[in-house]
Amino acid sequence: MTNQPGRSNFVHVRDVTLRDGFQDERFVATDEKIALFGALVAAGITDLELTSFVRPDRVPALADAEALVRATQSTEGVQRWGLVLNAKGAERALAVGLTNLQFVVSVSESHQRANAGGTVAQSLIQLREIVKIVRATPASVAVEVTLATAFGCPFSGPVPESDVLKVLEKVLEEGIDAVSLADTIGVAVPTEVTSLVSHVRQVTDLTPVGVHLHDTRGLGIANALAALDAGASRIDGTVGGLGGCPFAPGASGNLPLEDLIHALHAMGMNTGVKLEQLLEAAKLACQLVGQPVSSHVGVAGPRFARRPN
Amino acid sequence: MTNQPGRSNFVHVRDVTLRDGFQDERFVATDEKIALFGALVAAGITDLELTSFVRPDRVPALADAEALVRATQSTEGVQRWGLVLNAKGAERALAVGLTNLQFVVSVSESHQRANAGGTVAQSLIQLREIVKIVRATPASVAVEVTLATAFGCPFSGPVPESDVLKVLEKVLEEGIDAVSLADTIGVAVPTEVTSLVSHVRQVTDLTPVGVHLHDTRGLGIANALAALDAGASRIDGTVGGLGGCPFAPGASGNLPLEDLIHALHAMGMNTGVKLEQLLEAAKLACQLVGQPVSSHVGVAGPRFARRPN
Repeated sequence: MTNQPGRSNFVHVRDVTLRDGFQDERFVATDEKIALFGALVAAGITDLELTSFVRPDRVPALADAEALVRATQSTEGVQRWGLVLNAKGAERALAVGLTNLQFVVSVSESHQRANAGGTVAQSLIQLREIVKIVRATPASVAVEVTLATAFGCPFSGPVPESDVLKVLEKVLEEGIDAVSLADTIGVAVPTEVTSLVSHVRQVTDLTPVGVHLHDTRGLGIANALAALDAGASRIDGTVGGLGGCPFAPGASGNLPLEDLIHALHAMGMNTGVKLEQLLEAAKLACQLVGQPVSSHVGVAGPRFARRPN
Repeated sequence: MTNQPGRSNFVHVRDVTLRDGFQDERFVATDEKIALFGALVAAGITDLELTSFVRPDRVPALADAEALVRATQSTEGVQRWGLVLNAKGAERALAVGLTNLQFVVSVSESHQRANAGGTVAQSLIQLREIVKIVRATPASVAVEVTLATAFGCPFSGPVPESDVLKVLEKVLEEGIDAVSLADTIGVAVPTEVTSLVSHVRQVTDLTPVGVHLHDTRGLGIANALAALDAGASRIDGTVGGLGGCPFAPGASGNLPLEDLIHALHAMGMNTGVKLEQLLEAAKLACQLVGQPVSSHVGVAGPRFARRPN
């Protein structure tokens, strides 16, 4: 399990607290988001999902997308990601100088319909438009596509690998730069993660494959380790245990990055992240939305760090 | 990860809620313990840690040890385990007809002193006395030894494998029937579990090796899967997330059996346990001590079981 001979010792993580972690929580002011961004970067996080370029009148909490990108643009060596779901979103993101765009499409038609109000095919047309706009700009811009419900759908249940590979094939035809497999509702188990990541890697060739996991059923880290063993190039997570599953109130949310990083460091892996500072960032993030820290390491502390007497 | 060719598809679990899960909680009446025992057995649990034969004046909550053993003795196909820490405890357990005895010794001297008030060597003398008493009875009685703090100590920190193997060697000389490796304070990571279980298995030969894990830092299931891959014969856990770590208030406790069983079944393994009934037993256990269910699957529900709309 990980740390295999010939395998890089470095694990690349991306923090998605500012967008995915906050989206179902109470309003967070732009200044507070900037403070959290600073705390995460100070902790050594180099990839962050900042925001989503959606209609400000529909999602007021994300109306500060441009302001947030502008306020964080001088940070060298940091990849800032923004979600764009259509041409308009891509134009807004590019106009403000963002060079890492994410697009999301569900593998499951029923989830795509509920989440975005259209079909998978309609969504792929929007992806094509986005890629066209991106390739027409002089800047070097990366487009990553997240395949949502890649391990299961809240409406239709299990999602066969063949369905994931079919959507993946179409997505790859658009000439994208990276793929992310999302366990949107936290149903994956390690054997499934190993299998899907391996099979996707066979098709993607040189395109990097990340995973986006939830700890809903206690398998966040086990699935992350399985993904890394199968060749995943990056693991997404939030700090503080933020980011829930709207279909399971009270259930734990996104994979807590501090739990993952604590485990990886103890296993002899390197992440470039300073755990103690990440735990401070987790406290800040939870304060901003008025939630208790619910990550395991956030509650219990790092192993061997605090000893009684 | 698990499910390897040539490996049995069956995973053996032991519930330790009645002893380890309840020991730091509020008083539970004997009738209530019997009801939980019944619910766990109805769910398909075949191994249960019932109680500890300690001085009733010191631990009033366990003063019903004999009564609990008597009330549950007609249950066929179920292994009931009782903790005995000295000759007196063994005599009490045998007098009431218990045939599965557990003995606990810490690998770490500082934990042994804090937990039992003596040295490891003194404890091994007590083990020898217990084994002598057990072998003198006509009944077939199993003696299992749990090596506590096998992965780390709350006082002295990391515990080297060589320390575990030294205590193990002495324990095996006493002619015991099974070994259990306990991550008493929830500090182990999968690579360490793989390594220690493998090395212990090389020494124990035919003696089965179980593991007792905590989910304190989010690694409960990842560690359980690592242990199974390394040849562990049984995994301990509680239901409902009960059983905390006194050194980390608010931290999650013993590995929740429902989380493990949910994962194993989804991975194509068999446990003989009916998950839905185990979730009912978890609710009952938590009601008895006035705690909310805190296992992941207890909160979120099994995957694909409840779908909105």
